[in-house]
Amino acid sequence: MANRDAFWRTRISDVKPNEVRVRGYDLMELIGTRSFGDVTFLLLSGDLPTGNEGRLLEAMLVACTEHSLIAPSVDAARFVASSGVPLQAGVAAGMLALGDVHGGAVEEGADMLLEADDLHRDPADAAALMVARYAEERRRVPGYGHVVHDPDPRGRRLFEVAGQLGFRRRFCELALAFEPALQRSTGRDLKMNIDGSLAALLLELGLDPALGKALYVIGRAPGLVTHVHEEQTRERPYRDIGWKNVHYEGPDPRPLPDHPTT
Amino acid sequence: MANRDAFWRTRISDVKPNEVRVRGYDLMELIGTRSFGDVTFLLLSGDLPTGNEGRLLEAMLVACTEHSLIAPSVDAARFVASSGVPLQAGVAAGMLALGDVHGGAVEEGADMLLEADDLHRDPADAAALMVARYAEERRRVPGYGHVVHDPDPRGRRLFEVAGQLGFRRRFCELALAFEPALQRSTGRDLKMNIDGSLAALLLELGLDPALGKALYVIGRAPGLVTHVHEEQTRERPYRDIGWKNVHYEGPDPRPLPDHPTT
Amino acid sequence: MANRDAFWRTRISDVKPNEVRVRGYDLMELIGTRSFGDVTFLLLSGDLPTGNEGRLLEAMLVACTEHSLIAPSVDAARFVASSGVPLQAGVAAGMLALGDVHGGAVEEGADMLLEADDLHRDPADAAALMVARYAEERRRVPGYGHVVHDPDPRGRRLFEVAGQLGFRRRFCELALAFEPALQRSTGRDLKMNIDGSLAALLLELGLDPALGKALYVIGRAPGLVTHVHEEQTRERPYRDIGWKNVHYEGPDPRPLPDHPTT
Amino acid sequence: MANRDAFWRTRISDVKPNEVRVRGYDLMELIGTRSFGDVTFLLLSGDLPTGNEGRLLEAMLVACTEHSLIAPSVDAARFVASSGVPLQAGVAAGMLALGDVHGGAVEEGADMLLEADDLHRDPADAAALMVARYAEERRRVPGYGHVVHDPDPRGRRLFEVAGQLGFRRRFCELALAFEPALQRSTGRDLKMNIDGSLAALLLELGLDPALGKALYVIGRAPGLVTHVHEEQTRERPYRDIGWKNVHYEGPDPRPLPDHPTT
Repeated sequence: MANRDAFWRTRISDVKPNEVRVRGYDLMELIGTRSFGDVTFLLLSGDLPTGNEGRLLEAMLVACTEHSLIAPSVDAARFVASSGVPLQAGVAAGMLALGDVHGGAVEEGADMLLEADDLHRDPADAAALMVARYAEERRRVPGYGHVVHDPDPRGRRLFEVAGQLGFRRRFCELALAFEPALQRSTGRDLKMNIDGSLAALLLELGLDPALGKALYVIGRAPGLVTHVHEEQTRERPYRDIGWKNVHYEGPDPRPLPDHPTT
Repeated sequence: MANRDAFWRTRISDVKPNEVRVRGYDLMELIGTRSFGDVTFLLLSGDLPTGNEGRLLEAMLVACTEHSLIAPSVDAARFVASSGVPLQAGVAAGMLALGDVHGGAVEEGADMLLEADDLHRDPADAAALMVARYAEERRRVPGYGHVVHDPDPRGRRLFEVAGQLGFRRRFCELALAFEPALQRSTGRDLKMNIDGSLAALLLELGLDPALGKALYVIGRAPGLVTHVHEEQTRERPYRDIGWKNVHYEGPDPRPLPDHPTT
Repeated sequence: MANRDAFWRTRISDVKPNEVRVRGYDLMELIGTRSFGDVTFLLLSGDLPTGNEGRLLEAMLVACTEHSLIAPSVDAARFVASSGVPLQAGVAAGMLALGDVHGGAVEEGADMLLEADDLHRDPADAAALMVARYAEERRRVPGYGHVVHDPDPRGRRLFEVAGQLGFRRRFCELALAFEPALQRSTGRDLKMNIDGSLAALLLELGLDPALGKALYVIGRAPGLVTHVHEEQTRERPYRDIGWKNVHYEGPDPRPLPDHPTT
Repeated sequence: MANRDAFWRTRISDVKPNEVRVRGYDLMELIGTRSFGDVTFLLLSGDLPTGNEGRLLEAMLVACTEHSLIAPSVDAARFVASSGVPLQAGVAAGMLALGDVHGGAVEEGADMLLEADDLHRDPADAAALMVARYAEERRRVPGYGHVVHDPDPRGRRLFEVAGQLGFRRRFCELALAFEPALQRSTGRDLKMNIDGSLAALLLELGLDPALGKALYVIGRAPGLVTHVHEEQTRERPYRDIGWKNVHYEGPDPRPLPDHPTT
């Protein structure tokens, strides 16, 4: 079955004339009967939800959709969108910014929760051990505190919804146990933010932590599209910051030395 | 209210400490109570659905999710994904390929339907006039025929769902009228494909044709993520096509002329 | 020779074990004996310069290298660079912004010069006819005037260098003839900018106008790299514009209507 | 002088009306008198070469320009280019693929050489210690061996040129000392490849190892441009791998379970 020699091989979907099957299911049957969350779960996990997984995933994606321009990805997308490019190029530039410090805390946080879960059965003890380890390595615990919000209302709301849908389990408890552990360690009241809650819920859904960035990549797509569209329909082309707004801190004007090279 | 002097201004959302409002609605209330389709519709149109718009939009996005490697976007994403880059970079490369000839038919098709709709009240006449115009300008009518499928089952399935949800209206009728018009004009049995159906449904939803590419940009995101993840977890790094598989057709080996420039 | 059936075919270079030939020349012989401008000319045109083409091309690329943050591409690159991504992702985001209104005037300008050149043998007449046509179509003549400079010193400097290297010929004369034509038509003193001069020089080099954007894509690469590096080594991660700096102009806060969809 | 409060600040260049200064030098004076290599060195290092640095850098960039389709970046660029997108989007997709396993060995290799240089004064001993450390950590020593070439002729050629220009110094010697060390450790004849030589020469130029990827990002730009242009002028749009060429290895066709979610 497996064919290491095929240049292109995949377990995701099968396309033949007049037929598209995703993970074995007929795409035509999925269209109109299954939610976007269900089909996304099917793609990411390999099978359809057996319970509320698709609903929870939709809630997670909705939480990611939009955060105004308070995100480097959106600012980047709008600069690119202003430059006379097709819609998808602006969105792609925004996607690129979903890096290790901008959404990347979901993957790092999920890895951390798995590691903590291995350290100790008791969530409070596991969190305390993990926070101490991060402090020792002078690393920032991912998923707590926020640049604008205190606390980030999305983190709590997602856990509420997860509770209603039956997913507030071990990793959620563990994620919350980091709050008092951080309080004791740092003296600061760092509450779980949206990334912290997404990390825990990714694990409750049984998904690979390496898919941590997928939540923003998929969920933020509608927001990025809308910002690119707004930029292209409502603003003048070529977004210009104004030369007076750049503070130059380099060398003073200097003459060119005498060594022409061309 | 409007402030042309603000460097950053937006009608999309408002973020303040501990509060995120999308088009005036509290994001916390949207999370867990509204589908991804509803919130995407809210972003793209400016308001929440008053009926089944969100459901139809989810069906449209589901139809876009995945089509295996039979799409330049996915091949591009996998080559990039194989090169030692973060997940979002592979997805962004795939997004970039959603160009004028790969998903772009939705926008072009919606523009064409609007133009046809202006030409004549009767769909059959409008389609015939439009097909003649495209033939005269030697342009390909966008949204009919497919490189693999004949007919593309996604086009028909989306119209079925649109019918169930109450959206099979004027633009759907018009889109279908292009089939016999193309038959008469080209002698070929070119059936409406997924892009053709998305173009009509975009208009039935009242959305801006300039958002035509948005459907793939958003809908294909889960598929691209899954291909990037599969490439990075299941294949060797550095996807290599093999030097023997490149057919070189340029100049024969030749000596360098005598003009060193460095 | 030509093989339309080969999936990958190229006239650019030939790679075999222990051998790399570019357009037939041994890359090993090019390294260290030919300038970057010569080899870039070889790639773009298909052959090595027979005269000063490589020198002129290097001057054109040098003119494109850097323009501080007064360019949407650089702002986009820096936002992406701040997000925890590898260097090439920041640069790619900047590249994406080299769109129709940001460097795109080179291609458009070269097309315009070719069209004008066909209209009339006399440069002054050709320019006047062309300016009238653009005025009629309410299009902006590409390559004249600048958002910061008046005049853009790069345009004149490039023509000076082109004169020294023997390339100040027909298309340069034509490009300069647009200045008085624009003066008469618009009443404004719109001087040729860098894009206008690049357009003329692209044609003097005999290159395809479709390569207009190539000059910035190649020439700005060092500048983009340096900005990404500066952002990643000198600034805090996650460039944040500050929530108070966004002017929200959308709907006022409003309650969610009663139609849960999940 | 330093202004941490300025949103945009830079040491790279200063743009005022009718003036562009790069690192303090007048760009107008650089155009036509300094090579692309010199100006790139100015940008990357902060100052103009005092000797042959610009020449060596041009040789390094020339070595990077082109390697046919035997590179995931070029394949990605061509798939994107085939999709109806502007030139810069195809190039950007190719750039994205210049990742940790595709050009990334330059940065990793430069870091390794610096680390080795700290371990022992004698190059042979330093290399042997470093190879042992990599073997222990089961990491691949970056910059030796090649997927097509044996040995990669570009590595040796660059060292030849570096010798002629006076840059064959400590780090070059150290880089070569890895060859016998690898021979003894692995029993394989792994010769220094282009990345290995670029790593050593980056250090001989005194540049930051974090700029390792910059050499390909800048140097490969002309090659990527040319491939995108060739794809867009010589090939049919929408590069299609053919559905029969995908080996599907996922679940067999299966019926949808009974849980509609929309």
